Amino acid sequence: MSIPEYVSDKIVELGSLELQGGEVISPLELAYQTYGELSPSKDNAILVCHALSGDAHAAGTLRGEVKEKDKNGWWHDYIGPDKAIDTNKYFVICSNVIGGCMGSSGPKSINPKTGAPYQSTFPFVSISDMVNAQKKLIDHLEIEKLFCVVGGSMGGMQALQWSVSYPESLIKCIVIASTSQHSAQQIAFNEVGRMAIERDPNWNNGMYGDNPPRNGLALARMYSHITYLSDEIMRQRFGRNPPKGSISNTDFDVGSFLIHQGKSFVDRFDANSYIYVTKALDHFSLGSDKELTKNLSGVKAEFLVIAFSSDWLYPPSQSREIVKSLEVNFAPVTFCEINTSNGHDAFLKYDKHQENVIRHFLSSRFRR
Amino acid sequence: MSIPEYVSDKIVELGSLELQGGEVISPLELAYQTYGELSPSKDNAILVCHALSGDAHAAGTLRGEVKEKDKNGWWHDYIGPDKAIDTNKYFVICSNVIGGCMGSSGPKSINPKTGAPYQSTFPFVSISDMVNAQKKLIDHLEIEKLFCVVGGSMGGMQALQWSVSYPESLIKCIVIASTSQHSAQQIAFNEVGRMAIERDPNWNNGMYGDNPPRNGLALARMYSHITYLSDEIMRQRFGRNPPKGSISNTDFDVGSFLIHQGKSFVDRFDANSYIYVTKALDHFSLGSDKELTKNLSGVKAEFLVIAFSSDWLYPPSQSREIVKSLEVNFAPVTFCEINTSNGHDAFLKYDKHQENVIRHFLSSRFRR
Repeated sequence: MSIPEYVSDKIVELGSLELQGGEVISPLELAYQTYGELSPSKDNAILVCHALSGDAHAAGTLRGEVKEKDKNGWWHDYIGPDKAIDTNKYFVICSNVIGGCMGSSGPKSINPKTGAPYQSTFPFVSISDMVNAQKKLIDHLEIEKLFCVVGGSMGGMQALQWSVSYPESLIKCIVIASTSQHSAQQIAFNEVGRMAIERDPNWNNGMYGDNPPRNGLALARMYSHITYLSDEIMRQRFGRNPPKGSISNTDFDVGSFLIHQGKSFVDRFDANSYIYVTKALDHFSLGSDKELTKNLSGVKAEFLVIAFSSDWLYPPSQSREIVKSLEVNFAPVTFCEINTSNGHDAFLKYDKHQENVIRHFLSSRFRR
Repeated sequence: MSIPEYVSDKIVELGSLELQGGEVISPLELAYQTYGELSPSKDNAILVCHALSGDAHAAGTLRGEVKEKDKNGWWHDYIGPDKAIDTNKYFVICSNVIGGCMGSSGPKSINPKTGAPYQSTFPFVSISDMVNAQKKLIDHLEIEKLFCVVGGSMGGMQALQWSVSYPESLIKCIVIASTSQHSAQQIAFNEVGRMAIERDPNWNNGMYGDNPPRNGLALARMYSHITYLSDEIMRQRFGRNPPKGSISNTDFDVGSFLIHQGKSFVDRFDANSYIYVTKALDHFSLGSDKELTKNLSGVKAEFLVIAFSSDWLYPPSQSREIVKSLEVNFAPVTFCEINTSNGHDAFLKYDKHQENVIRHFLSSRFRR
């Protein structure tokens, strides 16, 4: 079953969602896309979870609007006919996280009590809340058990949380370039990113309307982008070269690259969502060591954990912690550390080893 | 010879300095401190070079002004009677770099042509220019040959540049936690730091007078501070703890720590100087590999190179590059990688291994 020439978001209303913090999102709206066809026995569904700045458009091509080019999904290299996640075999679902700004309920949604966008009055959402919202979508699609939940970075946290929150609802789980909880360093980068936004003169306590804190958000993104790459790949790509083109205020190629990254991010992402989603990341905590082992004691899925050698933001040691705690619980787990210079961003890029290991893991028979 | 109870800056006018870029600083003023006593034969002088946010106050105690506490020098642990750099034996000099904001010629100096502070009209200065200014001070003190030039981080660059620019003027050279040139990643962190300052509404192209871009400078410092620490030390010190005290706008202890760091930095440092000095860092380039070997071919000093295992901002691999190029040139060089969790900041902290290795290197007979 091939993906149609163009894909598009579906928006579904799913009643209400009570959040971990006690507040309620109502109506709960989720934007999602699907690729491939659900089998009559509904046993071939794979849920793909996106990272901080991702969205429901994981695969296929979105038709460009005026002046904009057609756009492939963020995991186009891995999802499609005969790809690692083969849409001839699997029914693939990807939904935008709540708290985000790409169609699902979030700070840009209308608060029915006021008729105006929530902005910073939207309630705090956790990774668990994101997963609970996805579960409502899966229920809505009348899928009792997912064949697999897969995600990288924040998507990996969601996949891991699925195995904890709904152990009976997934057969396989793939956790890529992720962690069971943020370290102080990971929190620190996000904390200062949030401060960059909140100190922007346009911030207005998050009630900035059509005048968003663009500079603050761009700064947060530019710094973060450094953490997504490795020292090695930056040497290869930019070295100490002078800036390209006419961009002023920078002495180096890497500076003009980051300026471009900041600008294009601000054009598509909401500052409040950046704060909500990074807070969800920082507060996610399945613990480490014994606490993590305890939290993973009820999992039923078979796991694949992937890490990348040059990823210093989510270093392989954090993936190994998850693997160790799964092993202590006798959960079937395969660990693969891929040697690459692409840093944290490696999970988004085409890599034949990542492709193969995902393909094989999905194809192999369940061992328990 | 003990250090007097209180030390203070001397300011000296040293004529004019022609910069690498062709512009001239006139008058050239340098703020400096000295500790210990110059021997009659003037063979016991050690020049200490400071890092980005350092100053001439390397050792001894500055008397606190009203409401301010007495303040020890930034390398108080290493300079003093019977310390690694023993002021009973050595005459120690430390001067503030040009382009800085702690007494030497820089953006806060008065431009004699206008009668007003230069601010961002101050000319670009390089690490070589900083070293040339220091050479004028050493000439002024009528010291023909320094026994040693030593520095960490940017101070290490200056020490290395001394051995290249004035090979006959130093016997020993100590380069700590430094590099022969910034990588793209090191440049990237500084580039975004400069953008944070330049996007602050108070920036005014650097002509901000008494209304400096405090938020931008604080953001640059907060992000940089993450790079000065290691993942490990941040786990130990902050973990995932909630913030201490009443500081708002942060969810975590590490956030309140960084807010404090940003604030105290802005209280003492000038935003223009931050831009000038980080540009000097980014543009410093003795090259790598064969180019570095060629640039180091004329050195005459004996070298000690120190790196710290958990320093990911100036990783030990960059120190090893310097060592390798020195060895190819048959320069006497001792390399010491110290195992510590203190990250890049390790060079500033008391460490008995660093103390011993510096003491031994200074005490040992020159081998050529």
